[in-house]
Amino acid sequence: MINYFSSKFKLGVLGGGQLGKMLLSETQKYDIYTSILDGAKDAPCAQICNEFHQGSLMDFDTVYNFGKKVDVLTIEIEHVNIEALLKLEKEGLEIYPQPSVLQIIQHKGRQKDFFVKNGIPTSPHKRFSSLAALKKEALSFPFVWKSAQFGYDGTGVKIVKNENDLNSLTNTDCIIEELIPFKNELAVIVARNKNGEIKTYPVVEMEFHPEANQVEYVICPARISDDVAKKAKDIALNVAESFKHIGLLAVELFQTENDDILVNEVAPRTHNSGHYSIEASYTSQFEQHLRSILNLPLGNTASKVAGIMVNLVGEEGFSGDVVYENMEEILKMDGVTPHIYGKKQTHPFRKMGHVTVVNNNLDEARKIAEKVKNTIRVISK
Amino acid sequence: MINYFSSKFKLGVLGGGQLGKMLLSETQKYDIYTSILDGAKDAPCAQICNEFHQGSLMDFDTVYNFGKKVDVLTIEIEHVNIEALLKLEKEGLEIYPQPSVLQIIQHKGRQKDFFVKNGIPTSPHKRFSSLAALKKEALSFPFVWKSAQFGYDGTGVKIVKNENDLNSLTNTDCIIEELIPFKNELAVIVARNKNGEIKTYPVVEMEFHPEANQVEYVICPARISDDVAKKAKDIALNVAESFKHIGLLAVELFQTENDDILVNEVAPRTHNSGHYSIEASYTSQFEQHLRSILNLPLGNTASKVAGIMVNLVGEEGFSGDVVYENMEEILKMDGVTPHIYGKKQTHPFRKMGHVTVVNNNLDEARKIAEKVKNTIRVISK
Repeated sequence: MINYFSSKFKLGVLGGGQLGKMLLSETQKYDIYTSILDGAKDAPCAQICNEFHQGSLMDFDTVYNFGKKVDVLTIEIEHVNIEALLKLEKEGLEIYPQPSVLQIIQHKGRQKDFFVKNGIPTSPHKRFSSLAALKKEALSFPFVWKSAQFGYDGTGVKIVKNENDLNSLTNTDCIIEELIPFKNELAVIVARNKNGEIKTYPVVEMEFHPEANQVEYVICPARISDDVAKKAKDIALNVAESFKHIGLLAVELFQTENDDILVNEVAPRTHNSGHYSIEASYTSQFEQHLRSILNLPLGNTASKVAGIMVNLVGEEGFSGDVVYENMEEILKMDGVTPHIYGKKQTHPFRKMGHVTVVNNNLDEARKIAEKVKNTIRVISK
Repeated sequence: MINYFSSKFKLGVLGGGQLGKMLLSETQKYDIYTSILDGAKDAPCAQICNEFHQGSLMDFDTVYNFGKKVDVLTIEIEHVNIEALLKLEKEGLEIYPQPSVLQIIQHKGRQKDFFVKNGIPTSPHKRFSSLAALKKEALSFPFVWKSAQFGYDGTGVKIVKNENDLNSLTNTDCIIEELIPFKNELAVIVARNKNGEIKTYPVVEMEFHPEANQVEYVICPARISDDVAKKAKDIALNVAESFKHIGLLAVELFQTENDDILVNEVAPRTHNSGHYSIEASYTSQFEQHLRSILNLPLGNTASKVAGIMVNLVGEEGFSGDVVYENMEEILKMDGVTPHIYGKKQTHPFRKMGHVTVVNNNLDEARKIAEKVKNTIRVISK
């Protein structure tokens, strides 16, 4: 085995946002020297990694030159220069997830085609190279429109109800999908290492705000039957095996009215739906990502206690130096841990942090999560 | 409340060793800007804090000047220049634990006198200003000799069995204590904030190697009766209240043959006996220390699961660049988390890290801890 710990081994990470920051907790715990590349000088990771480089993740030379100076390369965001990664890999660098997998996943058209080709259940879709091409099609409304690339946190996704809605779409490479009515939005995180050892985390459930149609809570375990949970895990395992993915793969799923499970999309990295694991699981998703990309044995994915995550996003109407109002109130509540990502400026809906609530009892955790949600406010001075 | 999070607030920490490093995990989680002073350029905290200053913790000017640039000051080691702290406090700086408490605790003679004065049960002791003064006394053997200052991890403590043993003692300010036969060595960590809110962690037990007389495992919860546990917690609470201590206080205790509880000594900070809490507790001792010194509400001190800590110390016969042999083997075991402190050089008995084993079942955790102990080796290349 390579000596990763307190050694000259250097792990490179493309991206220095909150996912990178939470990964650093684990590299620090293992004392693995970590070098990070990010476009922003004040990225959340900038001051707390061993080595920080500022530069564009989409620039061939920047990514290539960064990669030449590390021993293993990973990502915390999938929008990176793939050509540079392919060249680095050809020259012998270990990169996980593999560039070929990233190449498929970072394009929603290729991702959906991959699902179809590998018999992975997903809603029917069509690909278009532009908005003009889409408009030429005989369309049946409503449908889901997705920008093929660079969508993030709901940007680049729209429900198109009629001809008129077409005018609000960006003119870009896109896919459209049948709109499937679903009971639940679920997610399963799969970890797989180079040896082929593979494990899933428990199925989690996204609970939506009854009116705003926004995810309010990520709940682990999902409040679903064992049968549905098993189906969801089996499908997630199948997706990871089909990709021969190395690293963490977050598989977002729909549970339909008939309890069918459809894959919505995947993210080839640690994921918002796994943040609960830092407090609730035997092995946090960030430690598990490290274990999988370094070909170490995978840790126990079971939970010690029930966990619910509440996102902290900037409140509408506030922009500027962030203030977390009523932090003291939520710290009084049982089993509450805030994670502040370190972005100094808030603006409406910006992801600024999250709060995890853990409890032996899921219903109790759910009540506390609601109190947290109704108490803390992310505003500006 | 002061806005600590993603703000201009600056926390200063005297000491940048492993305790500081584990504290940084928490300041990063809360995005609290942290500045650290340590004598060693390559201290475990050096590369991962917001601001690092190299300088002696015992030097008045160094500590004073460092303190002038922070908003709240804390320690991760008690051997610091107290005069500088007293002056900083007089000039308005908040310092926790309070310099007056540190002053008592950092001197074992004053510490024992404080226990006696406050009716805290402890073994009978006498103070001496030098070895010569001690030798003039009519002594009854055996007894425990302790250097009054700068003892650490068992250095500065000796069991003196006869006149001859006196020659192995250092000529220094010291105390001697009656040697009390005990069944168990226990510890209780108490957290107390400025508001006076106070909480104890569960009682933990040190399990010793049957021959080597060295602590092998720290076990939470201790395998003792509820009555003994209650007595231990009440005494620990009493110690913290007597000091009006702000921050974390680790209270080391003896359980005598008659189930009396005696205070051995205290440490005014996070402590080796609380490392299990990172994985096992609702609130880790490091987060709790932050909460207490920043006058935030204290977190739940209960455990999610049973926890056992195994220290990783440098193996005898090895000095030089460290290698953690068989890390892969221990990572295969259930609920095992290694913490590598980041010291690049090992030497015999140097504290290099620790491993936590968590499990729903304490006996199972104990078995795994023994496997860990017998598997991992801290050696050099």
